Amino acid sequence: MRPEPPPHADTVAEVGEFGLIRRVTAGRTQPPTTLLGPGDDAAVVAVSDGRVVVSTDVLVDGVHFRLDWSSPEQVGRKAAAVNLSDVCAMGAKPTALLIGIACPADTPTALVEGITSGLWQEAAVAGAGVVGGDMTSSATLVISVTALGDMGGLEPVTRSGARVGDLVAVCGRLGWAAAGLAVLGRGFRSPVAVVGAQRNPEPPYPAGPQAAAAGATSMIDVSDGLLADLGHVADESGVGVDIRTELLQVHPRLLDVASALGADARHWVLTGGEDHALAATFPDQGSIPDGWQVIGSVRPGGGVTVDGRGYEKPPGWEHWR
Amino acid sequence: MRPEPPPHADTVAEVGEFGLIRRVTAGRTQPPTTLLGPGDDAAVVAVSDGRVVVSTDVLVDGVHFRLDWSSPEQVGRKAAAVNLSDVCAMGAKPTALLIGIACPADTPTALVEGITSGLWQEAAVAGAGVVGGDMTSSATLVISVTALGDMGGLEPVTRSGARVGDLVAVCGRLGWAAAGLAVLGRGFRSPVAVVGAQRNPEPPYPAGPQAAAAGATSMIDVSDGLLADLGHVADESGVGVDIRTELLQVHPRLLDVASALGADARHWVLTGGEDHALAATFPDQGSIPDGWQVIGSVRPGGGVTVDGRGYEKPPGWEHWR
Repeated sequence: MRPEPPPHADTVAEVGEFGLIRRVTAGRTQPPTTLLGPGDDAAVVAVSDGRVVVSTDVLVDGVHFRLDWSSPEQVGRKAAAVNLSDVCAMGAKPTALLIGIACPADTPTALVEGITSGLWQEAAVAGAGVVGGDMTSSATLVISVTALGDMGGLEPVTRSGARVGDLVAVCGRLGWAAAGLAVLGRGFRSPVAVVGAQRNPEPPYPAGPQAAAAGATSMIDVSDGLLADLGHVADESGVGVDIRTELLQVHPRLLDVASALGADARHWVLTGGEDHALAATFPDQGSIPDGWQVIGSVRPGGGVTVDGRGYEKPPGWEHWR
Repeated sequence: MRPEPPPHADTVAEVGEFGLIRRVTAGRTQPPTTLLGPGDDAAVVAVSDGRVVVSTDVLVDGVHFRLDWSSPEQVGRKAAAVNLSDVCAMGAKPTALLIGIACPADTPTALVEGITSGLWQEAAVAGAGVVGGDMTSSATLVISVTALGDMGGLEPVTRSGARVGDLVAVCGRLGWAAAGLAVLGRGFRSPVAVVGAQRNPEPPYPAGPQAAAAGATSMIDVSDGLLADLGHVADESGVGVDIRTELLQVHPRLLDVASALGADARHWVLTGGEDHALAATFPDQGSIPDGWQVIGSVRPGGGVTVDGRGYEKPPGWEHWR
């Protein structure tokens, strides 16, 4: 048995890999789908219907999060949320997260404990467990997250099933994280609701399986921006998408912030990423579930238009560009 | 539709995230278990028996691999191997890999294509597909890999099932990667077989499901070193393990290299990590599958001994230490 690290140890090098894994897993409870949790070569997760949904994301300090803008718990919650949301966007219910953390030897233990605590918290919100992971050393703090999900017998809702005549609907916040980023970028810390949206996305997890059960023909997680992500649906489905601005709800709070900063709130709604709303297409008005707002329709052709015209500002975010 | 990058583009920033994802997924074939491969919010993988086995690892440039010692393909193969091996160590057959790559904007496209090519190659060796991933920017090159596996109706073989009187057996190479590291560390590039073992682990993938079917009571992937990893089995099972040196096969090639370097080949076999052999316990001699060598037995007490005595050199590798 390795000795426990001293209680005053405050860097990951002092506590060590195995001590740290013990600290971040001790006392945690798992959902019934976790058949075998952390501590072995691999975890074992229950699957109800012969198929598992799985997605992975990598988040990098200074690129996807800033520890001077967000607490470690907020970083962990966000890292979990972006990936859990991908699983929900297939129509699946999240069951499990695996987390990898690479960080410098002098990283405070409290930072890693905060990040993992946030990951556990967000997993619990979505109904998932944290079933495994890896911790290692790196010059840059990098968090990798893998999420598993269960379709519960439904068919996965891909990006390629949108058909001409379908209605386009969204569920969840749009533009809030972009507004928060704009506020933080100007050096402000309020309004809290907007800044908080940048730090803590609140993906509408249950809306994914809800849309799948309601017959959604395509679905995507809005991570790069509404126009960019609907562009993926349009490309993969071989159709065009038209958004109607009169249907697009811009929250009064965003209008206030945009006015204060001299910015365009509708641009945040159309292009802001990181809120992790869901966008989906449905065959008709009767199939739209509660909580979803129709914002447009699927038309012949290709690409995404706004009120029938091309949108001229840059449509989203792409890495290394 | 985004334009294709020009064919002469040679950094990830020039090709862009989406162009690079297209390049590394184009023309690849998937096994039948890949129900939905790369390109959507998440992948969908078939599971035969209501349970999925899953493990994740993070590999960091300069920590887990060195691009001056290994080709990008070798780095990719190794990144896949370490994780596929974890899945096999539960007794599962690997079905899928997900890969995350974070790298600087000026990283040559060929480097990322080489790494992903190696990941695809090793996945194919184990019978798995590459079903998804993420690419993003980072100051440090970091590769995260998640592997899924299928138990095929067998029970997972954990670290906690070893019983007093069981035999301890291993399958696969031991000490070769440590010998290769010693050779490279002295600035040599040969013998090729030994150096190659450090660059390209060859985990005995089919031996995992084979051991599970044969009734193995516990199993572990030898990644940190035989003594360290059997120590995990001893701790988790509440037993002791004794290794008999007269049963321990030290390959003549390792004896030659050790002699040339003034090193101890048996020390490499007992403590060298990264070969990804499998170590397991079996109830009796009749249950040991072909290809496995008995090296000792499970005794009362705790910890790992060699010929009944404690082993005095450091037992393995722990990160940040």
